[in-house]
Amino acid sequence: MDLTFEEFRDSLASRSRRAKVLKRDGRHFFVLISQQFSKEELDNLCDTATAIRRLDRHVDGREYLRALLRGARIMNLFAQPSTRTAESFVAAADKLGAHSRLVSDIRTSSFSKGESVEDSVRTLSSFFDGIVARHPDDDFGIRAAWALSKTQRTIPVISAGSGKSQHVTQSLLDFYTLRYSLAAKGGVDGKTVMIVGDIARNRAGRSLAYLLTKFDSPTIHFVSPRAHAPDDQLLEYIRGHDIEVHVHHAIKPLLESHGESIDAMYMTRLQQEWDKGNVAGQPSTEQKLGTADDFILHHDYRKFIRPDCVLMHPLPRVNELPDEWEEHPGFVVWRQVRNGMWIRAAVFATVFGADEEIRDRGKRLGLM
Amino acid sequence: MDLTFEEFRDSLASRSRRAKVLKRDGRHFFVLISQQFSKEELDNLCDTATAIRRLDRHVDGREYLRALLRGARIMNLFAQPSTRTAESFVAAADKLGAHSRLVSDIRTSSFSKGESVEDSVRTLSSFFDGIVARHPDDDFGIRAAWALSKTQRTIPVISAGSGKSQHVTQSLLDFYTLRYSLAAKGGVDGKTVMIVGDIARNRAGRSLAYLLTKFDSPTIHFVSPRAHAPDDQLLEYIRGHDIEVHVHHAIKPLLESHGESIDAMYMTRLQQEWDKGNVAGQPSTEQKLGTADDFILHHDYRKFIRPDCVLMHPLPRVNELPDEWEEHPGFVVWRQVRNGMWIRAAVFATVFGADEEIRDRGKRLGLM
Amino acid sequence: MDLTFEEFRDSLASRSRRAKVLKRDGRHFFVLISQQFSKEELDNLCDTATAIRRLDRHVDGREYLRALLRGARIMNLFAQPSTRTAESFVAAADKLGAHSRLVSDIRTSSFSKGESVEDSVRTLSSFFDGIVARHPDDDFGIRAAWALSKTQRTIPVISAGSGKSQHVTQSLLDFYTLRYSLAAKGGVDGKTVMIVGDIARNRAGRSLAYLLTKFDSPTIHFVSPRAHAPDDQLLEYIRGHDIEVHVHHAIKPLLESHGESIDAMYMTRLQQEWDKGNVAGQPSTEQKLGTADDFILHHDYRKFIRPDCVLMHPLPRVNELPDEWEEHPGFVVWRQVRNGMWIRAAVFATVFGADEEIRDRGKRLGLM
Repeated sequence: MDLTFEEFRDSLASRSRRAKVLKRDGRHFFVLISQQFSKEELDNLCDTATAIRRLDRHVDGREYLRALLRGARIMNLFAQPSTRTAESFVAAADKLGAHSRLVSDIRTSSFSKGESVEDSVRTLSSFFDGIVARHPDDDFGIRAAWALSKTQRTIPVISAGSGKSQHVTQSLLDFYTLRYSLAAKGGVDGKTVMIVGDIARNRAGRSLAYLLTKFDSPTIHFVSPRAHAPDDQLLEYIRGHDIEVHVHHAIKPLLESHGESIDAMYMTRLQQEWDKGNVAGQPSTEQKLGTADDFILHHDYRKFIRPDCVLMHPLPRVNELPDEWEEHPGFVVWRQVRNGMWIRAAVFATVFGADEEIRDRGKRLGLM
Repeated sequence: MDLTFEEFRDSLASRSRRAKVLKRDGRHFFVLISQQFSKEELDNLCDTATAIRRLDRHVDGREYLRALLRGARIMNLFAQPSTRTAESFVAAADKLGAHSRLVSDIRTSSFSKGESVEDSVRTLSSFFDGIVARHPDDDFGIRAAWALSKTQRTIPVISAGSGKSQHVTQSLLDFYTLRYSLAAKGGVDGKTVMIVGDIARNRAGRSLAYLLTKFDSPTIHFVSPRAHAPDDQLLEYIRGHDIEVHVHHAIKPLLESHGESIDAMYMTRLQQEWDKGNVAGQPSTEQKLGTADDFILHHDYRKFIRPDCVLMHPLPRVNELPDEWEEHPGFVVWRQVRNGMWIRAAVFATVFGADEEIRDRGKRLGLM
Repeated sequence: MDLTFEEFRDSLASRSRRAKVLKRDGRHFFVLISQQFSKEELDNLCDTATAIRRLDRHVDGREYLRALLRGARIMNLFAQPSTRTAESFVAAADKLGAHSRLVSDIRTSSFSKGESVEDSVRTLSSFFDGIVARHPDDDFGIRAAWALSKTQRTIPVISAGSGKSQHVTQSLLDFYTLRYSLAAKGGVDGKTVMIVGDIARNRAGRSLAYLLTKFDSPTIHFVSPRAHAPDDQLLEYIRGHDIEVHVHHAIKPLLESHGESIDAMYMTRLQQEWDKGNVAGQPSTEQKLGTADDFILHHDYRKFIRPDCVLMHPLPRVNELPDEWEEHPGFVVWRQVRNGMWIRAAVFATVFGADEEIRDRGKRLGLM
């Protein structure tokens, strides 16, 4: 394969050319963007995650899982610190018996001596069988995949968040949790989802909206400050999939009028670290942390919604989802965190070709 | 259990209420303070450590040990750097087959974005089966245990030192070494122990004194600079247990008059990093490091003591215990370091319920 | 053994006294300098690396290898950050089933409280079965080996680079790659090797030259800027072994006249981080990175050399070895990186006494 970096990157935008660069032997080898999974592949991924989760409950299943990727070595190349995402990947690899290393100095040492990014990635990749990459540059994961795809020792690359653009495993875990939580009610098709917060700057909320377009006629209500409302590109993309979408600027009036119709709420915090004047993506010490009243899900709003309404949040939270909600039957925020580990294990199983075997075993043992 | 944090914390002070919050199914689940162990439980802990140490000598025993906690994942949450303590815990977990991760940024990332400590701990704990916590705040370990005890996925919490108040596993290892070293002479009951150094600011020396109160009529000699002498609260507590305690301000006169009667010496360094005017718990570069002559155990004092006198030090040492002592038959300082690993392995075995099995095996194989 | 540090260090310079301090039970226990290996031992080391590399190709071999050092714990004590060297050692240990930890704060914490280097190393070593050490001080690895050799629990020490003087495993991997690449042509004896770059400040190029003196009449061409030419001591040492050596100051004329005779080229970058005026071993931001035209191997020079000429580089590279060379049949740079892992695994096998068994198995299975 002799694509330039630009050709490689641009082919990701096209559904037909995408598979050729991301898949090997018919399976996903590079996991870089949410859109790369078809609806059927998403279902398989979720089923794999469920099988792993249930196999892990008993000692036999745990031993079975830990033998699957034994000896495989994963490099978590985190140029941007993110302990919880990194630990979630490490735990996921661990469940399947793979060995993880956290490497964080891609920007230093040899790089500062004049080495190219490609040489850096390739050198480090020599000691590993797979890479999980997180980087502030939007294209880093894609560049790593491209650089390795030209070598004789190509190994899988999984993005753990590149810049502000994509955080594919976060959107997969959200999708998995939503699908699972709505399963008893017939799945995601036709459901109504409210997404609250900083839509413009929160990739989690936006990515979830993109994934929802894979389903039959769901309805989406965005609730966000005017300054951080969903952009036209996002809205047009969603409408282009025949999906009803509305934009609001306060939670309360929406819940008063439509609360009963809402099947799931996805709360997010205000990304204040990106406010103008801040340095290095950190909130300034003078900022009052937390969102305005219109975007807080006060606990007394519970009277407007159904008890089975699913309540999600990608964490960390500030003031937008008060602790009292933990008692709500549909509160699945902590399950989301654990699901992040299970879906990442499913992603590892997929890129290393062990997923079908796992699903088969799960089915044979009546676990799913 | 619906205690507030204050109720949870305060119940640790009461012997009767303590067990209710720290134990689950009759065994210690949260290991936070030295006082939580009864004399019998201390004996069991020491026997477990000895069994592990001896099983580890042969390949069969090592394989047996490494299967005990296989698949268990331990988070070492060290907000305060302490390589040797962390590595001791990691080695201990490793001996039993558990997988350790070192996480050190509890204060950064999401925390700075406005997340609560409880959410941080709970999120990270989702990927683990046990937590070892070290933190500059006196109550951090307790707060973590409290936060997790309210969730549906409660996991053990072991303190690796919180602030200046407690360092439970350090005192357990000192106790284990002392008990072992005095075993041939009938154990700790009735023995005379000299504790030298910065009693006011060294939690190791003070904790050991607290543990000695569990025994029958030992005698304690403190030797410390006047500015860092044991406080009245400590002295009253010891005397309240019918224990003879004396305070001195120089080693030499004590050894001249009572050297022959001393069974064990516990040396500690001057904690100069806490001297007034220093920043961030580091000695200033202008300070002359080391203690004054009165608190140095000069090697020629060996003529005052018995050859079987036990010699301990929690390390690091500066000038208070010269190298020449290494030849002394009772010098067990390096054994203390190794014992730290064994006693921590025993603590892991205890909180995960594998300790009884280990002791039984040790006895059956005639190892103890 | 009661040597002072100076006696221990000085005995490394003598071939006869060296073995006494570096070997235990007839095998290398401390791996500190390239010169410590005899030609036969180098051959054994290379054969061990080849056996490991080939056993690792199949699942049975991998399982066999991973059982060899199971339970062994390796501390990678890196006072100087070097991700790729560290990860190479970790991967190597992993291949044989040993467990690695990366420890980097030997200079901080207890050390700043007045502890001696010996106490620091000895304390940390208590939790491990072997040490890999990298440190800016030339003598650190030797000091660690000396300190441990006086204790009752001596464990192997492997240098991963001490100061500017030695980088023993780098020279072993270069030698292994060279030997392997020239095997079809009768090995290293009598071959012509060109070493290009910053000879004065690049320990890799210089170390390789030292190892070449173990062979029968090779020819060495150094090509370096006048300011960084090989020093007289190096040249005399080489000539003292009856080896033809020439010093040049530009690549092109040498290739024009002697290109056909060259069997292997070893390219290195300009070590600009050591240029006068720079701080902390980092290139200044104003420096133009890269070497002058005379020391760049332009791709059109391929017309001067044989297609089977071996092309090596220790990485990182800047501009001295353009990407186009990757197509050259003798380009083995990426193999060098992987070989670093295999030769380090061979070193671990050697110090822990598993190397003979590995070679025997490799031979019995017809892998070598």
